Amino acid sequence: MNGEPTIIEVGEALFADNERRAFSLGASLRDRGTFAVNLMGSPGCGKTTLIERTAEGLPAGIRVAVVEADLASSLDARRMEARGIRCVQLNTGGYCHLDAAMTGAALEALGFGPGGLGSGDPPWDIVFIENIGNLVCTAQSPVGAGLDVALLSRPEGDDKPFKYPVMFRYARALVLTKRDYDDYPGLSGPFDVDAVARQVMLLNPAVRIFDTSCRSGAGMAEWISFLHAGYRDVVERRRRP
Amino acid sequence: MNGEPTIIEVGEALFADNERRAFSLGASLRDRGTFAVNLMGSPGCGKTTLIERTAEGLPAGIRVAVVEADLASSLDARRMEARGIRCVQLNTGGYCHLDAAMTGAALEALGFGPGGLGSGDPPWDIVFIENIGNLVCTAQSPVGAGLDVALLSRPEGDDKPFKYPVMFRYARALVLTKRDYDDYPGLSGPFDVDAVARQVMLLNPAVRIFDTSCRSGAGMAEWISFLHAGYRDVVERRRRP
Repeated sequence: MNGEPTIIEVGEALFADNERRAFSLGASLRDRGTFAVNLMGSPGCGKTTLIERTAEGLPAGIRVAVVEADLASSLDARRMEARGIRCVQLNTGGYCHLDAAMTGAALEALGFGPGGLGSGDPPWDIVFIENIGNLVCTAQSPVGAGLDVALLSRPEGDDKPFKYPVMFRYARALVLTKRDYDDYPGLSGPFDVDAVARQVMLLNPAVRIFDTSCRSGAGMAEWISFLHAGYRDVVERRRRP
Repeated sequence: MNGEPTIIEVGEALFADNERRAFSLGASLRDRGTFAVNLMGSPGCGKTTLIERTAEGLPAGIRVAVVEADLASSLDARRMEARGIRCVQLNTGGYCHLDAAMTGAALEALGFGPGGLGSGDPPWDIVFIENIGNLVCTAQSPVGAGLDVALLSRPEGDDKPFKYPVMFRYARALVLTKRDYDDYPGLSGPFDVDAVARQVMLLNPAVRIFDTSCRSGAGMAEWISFLHAGYRDVVERRRRP
């Protein structure tokens, strides 16, 4: 091997290649009126449950599909299908995050045409893309989504934004999950929502933050309303010449 | 860029290079009588707290030092120093896991000589290496430890071994954390310890599993005793010609 300079060049080319693919995929989905939502966060932070509850809470008539990514297994896809939600499971082997090519392949399986880049009326209105459970790498690889969302759950602790700043800078929305853990003070150590918000706003002043519990339903109306507005915005833009 | 074949070659070279470094570092530490313990798991799974409680529980006279890795911040190093535990903080920027070169640099800062590869009596007996919070990538990059440990916390859910098999195959010990969450049935969804154990044993029949709570102390004596035995084994082997 020729040492580090070669490695860095290949890395940059790879990143740039994915940025281009993600840009094209994102533009194509937007042009067709589909709102793709990329959900990122640690294993067990509540991504799958958030998708289930959000899909249930969106107005009837919005056609929702899901892309589930895991290193292995089809557990989450089976959870979705059990609820009657159309789902494609991506298995990445050991790969630690989705990229735009993998997402495009999943969208193709959902009927969006070759590489997800087809044209005409889209088969689905909102597509949730559940990324690999990983608070680090997923933030470094755009997938072509119209909205990139980070999740952070109560039991993970309130010190995560400064420890994982790449994610908290990248996401356009932050969903705090498992808010019902507050009913058990001391169980998970302190979780100071205001402190988290302050940390995240320093990294990312425009971020939208939602404090939710899928169990109690707290905060879910605001989150779903925000998502619905995002979808309507995509549709509106499509109608304009 | 020349496409995927080049990328794969570089990747393999990189992996092979780290494997060699990790092998050398691990052999050097073992020869000097130091037991290095690599702790891997999701953000917020309890790695830092487990190190704190384990360090307190080990017999007096064993000199414990810690390497803390985060993308950014020195929060965990400050936690350790507040307890009087010698600690070196590694900040990786955006890098998603430790490798043997980074670990060697931290060990050098702890007095183990250049690249951690010095000789003679070691400055520390047990070194805990807290890897980046990442259940995927850390399992693909050995750091030269004498023991690789995976952590899985109750709130992450009991479906993780099949979803993240790379980690559960790689680790030689699995520490289940936050066992005290069982006192709040239904809070985190089901966590079937036997099911987790069955999944992990299928992937990794020789793995040792510990079911612990740092809050209640449950299971900690077995875990600490296992670690202590691992350390004594390193010391015994050193004495033999």
